[in-house]
Amino acid sequence: MTMSTRTSAPRVSDRAGLVQPFAAMNIVAKVQEMSRNGRDTIAMCLGEPTQGAPGPVRRRAAEVVTDGTNLGYSPVFGIPELRSAIAGHYRDWYDIDVPAERIAITTGSSGAFQTAFLTCFDAGDRVALARPGYGAYKNILAALNCEIVELDCGGDHGFQPTVELLEQAHAQAPLKGLMLASPANPTGTMISGEHLGELISWCAEHGVQVISDEIYHGISYIGTRGETALAHDDNAIVISSFSKYWAMTGWRLGWAILPEELTHAAQNVTGNLSLCAPVPAQHAAVAAFTEESYAECEAAVESFARARKHVLDATADLGFSDMAPPDGAFYMYARIDEILQRSNDDIVTATDWCQALLDATGVALAPGDDFDSLNGSRSVRLSLAVGADKTAEAIDRILDFMR
Amino acid sequence: MTMSTRTSAPRVSDRAGLVQPFAAMNIVAKVQEMSRNGRDTIAMCLGEPTQGAPGPVRRRAAEVVTDGTNLGYSPVFGIPELRSAIAGHYRDWYDIDVPAERIAITTGSSGAFQTAFLTCFDAGDRVALARPGYGAYKNILAALNCEIVELDCGGDHGFQPTVELLEQAHAQAPLKGLMLASPANPTGTMISGEHLGELISWCAEHGVQVISDEIYHGISYIGTRGETALAHDDNAIVISSFSKYWAMTGWRLGWAILPEELTHAAQNVTGNLSLCAPVPAQHAAVAAFTEESYAECEAAVESFARARKHVLDATADLGFSDMAPPDGAFYMYARIDEILQRSNDDIVTATDWCQALLDATGVALAPGDDFDSLNGSRSVRLSLAVGADKTAEAIDRILDFMR
Repeated sequence: MTMSTRTSAPRVSDRAGLVQPFAAMNIVAKVQEMSRNGRDTIAMCLGEPTQGAPGPVRRRAAEVVTDGTNLGYSPVFGIPELRSAIAGHYRDWYDIDVPAERIAITTGSSGAFQTAFLTCFDAGDRVALARPGYGAYKNILAALNCEIVELDCGGDHGFQPTVELLEQAHAQAPLKGLMLASPANPTGTMISGEHLGELISWCAEHGVQVISDEIYHGISYIGTRGETALAHDDNAIVISSFSKYWAMTGWRLGWAILPEELTHAAQNVTGNLSLCAPVPAQHAAVAAFTEESYAECEAAVESFARARKHVLDATADLGFSDMAPPDGAFYMYARIDEILQRSNDDIVTATDWCQALLDATGVALAPGDDFDSLNGSRSVRLSLAVGADKTAEAIDRILDFMR
Repeated sequence: MTMSTRTSAPRVSDRAGLVQPFAAMNIVAKVQEMSRNGRDTIAMCLGEPTQGAPGPVRRRAAEVVTDGTNLGYSPVFGIPELRSAIAGHYRDWYDIDVPAERIAITTGSSGAFQTAFLTCFDAGDRVALARPGYGAYKNILAALNCEIVELDCGGDHGFQPTVELLEQAHAQAPLKGLMLASPANPTGTMISGEHLGELISWCAEHGVQVISDEIYHGISYIGTRGETALAHDDNAIVISSFSKYWAMTGWRLGWAILPEELTHAAQNVTGNLSLCAPVPAQHAAVAAFTEESYAECEAAVESFARARKHVLDATADLGFSDMAPPDGAFYMYARIDEILQRSNDDIVTATDWCQALLDATGVALAPGDDFDSLNGSRSVRLSLAVGADKTAEAIDRILDFMR
């Protein structure tokens, strides 16, 4: 037998075909390449705080990679010190006691989503989520053969699900899960405590598993850090991460808080799918809960707040519309219909416009397609995670470009 | 509405119920706890080289976490420097040119398995693999609703699949994939170049996607580093990692080499499921391909070789049987029927015996259940990754325990 007898080329699975490209991640590669080639870029395409990990985290990381700390596998759900530290964080921030046994350290919030989805949902299960919303929820669920039920959440109820929308979707065929995100990506809107209580009660009554993405907690402009689903129901799964408030994106470290009944199955799933989360990062992240680290994070939030004000002040000039002033997170999501109308014929979609803007100015925004299959091609998401000064500079460049 | 109206507790999905606990990972937690409590343990339960990452890797890691290196997200398939370095490694070790575009940096080999399985296989697709074999293959495939076809690979053909076994399985219902592992976990056997060529040709002729786990390459006792599937077919998916030869287990860094036709879909899947692999580790791992790093790794392999000899010399005294002298990797897999027969009535299974051994001596072995649903409960896997001296000490303790 020789290779010439080969009869078939590799075949892509049907489910992989359902997974949409993560456009924002592809833009990252392009911006990083431009940067390497000496271009002065401002990457507002990603939720990636540019200040980097807090000093105490970086110092602890340098220690553990050089001293004799065992950087072999950790237990599946993480090193005990970090699980305890996270339990302490919930006491401090939310006045809630979470047993460390229910806290799973994961490989970013991405790892937590996988664990949660696989542990709770079977192929064919209907899982509801908001449109617009974070594209990876849909794509992971699609890869796992779940049925995605998009709830069209307009600006009139803060781009967030309502009991009415849930009732409608559930009437068509029973829902098994509801994905919540507050503050939300890409809109930055938050669900109030009362609204969250209503949604969670409805889910509890109808046997719908709530998964609450709370990764942007702490990044807020309305005087609350974010309402945790745990305050309403111990059966909710809460997902968070060190990527946003603590600016540790590339470290790939997050967590899930699980109902007691799910911890055993979730541990089996996580152990087999990932073994454990990155161990140097786990040790380093224990230092995220120090006074010095929190202070650095709060300074960054202040910078995002100034950046937010810059964009709000320039909204009319920019030609953005339908933009909710974000309650939290560091995103602003806007329709650009007016901009597209005024553009030349080569520019039809948000992707076209973002591409032209990037080429001309080095400013990278994310076209809305990752977040919204309905209006995304006429929308953009700005990430304020670059901070106030770069945001101001980016606005100037965008306005120049539009002239 | 109040919480008292709640009607349902969280439900574990059917597919999560199919995932077996990763027993070896649970033992890790126990051993680490004993260690923290001051017990003198020897953890031969895991494939975790105790020497840790090479010096150049650790020094580079310390640099990147403290200097201004951007530790935000990398491109989905990793930083270009590391992809190039891996391409160089394939030229050096195998005399094979792999375009960097086909190399995906992943979150350990675990991340590579997920990417490969989701990209190639749909729910219901039949995927063949060797029994005994690495348990996570089965468990990940089960979680993804694939049908697992276990090939009973006995010692007479080196615990590896044969064309005959493939023919039989394929005749029952067409196979879509074949998982290969050489050197294999838990047996350490390697597939010869000729045998590999036969298996791959058969798969190519029958439209069966080959996924070749080559994570133990470089750890070998028979004068070859391991035969790569890429030498036979560019359409094979090759998976490897920095965890074993480079001893970077907890860093969670691996890679996949993909056929060109699959890279786009695989990138979509990986971007959505994990965003990117841990970035501090990616930068550090570039230093894995230096002369100093290779020299440290080779010294570790020599220590595993001495450990292997210690066990082989003691096999009869230990009462182990059916053990293939491993060609590579750092595992030895043996039947312990004789030991179980001689044990007291409390000890019926390998798990019982491993538990009693751990309690009495601090030596942790892995019961075979993770690797073999047929004979695993009467088998154990020893990991030589602790090195020669600790292996010798462990053998003494086991012999003492058996007296």
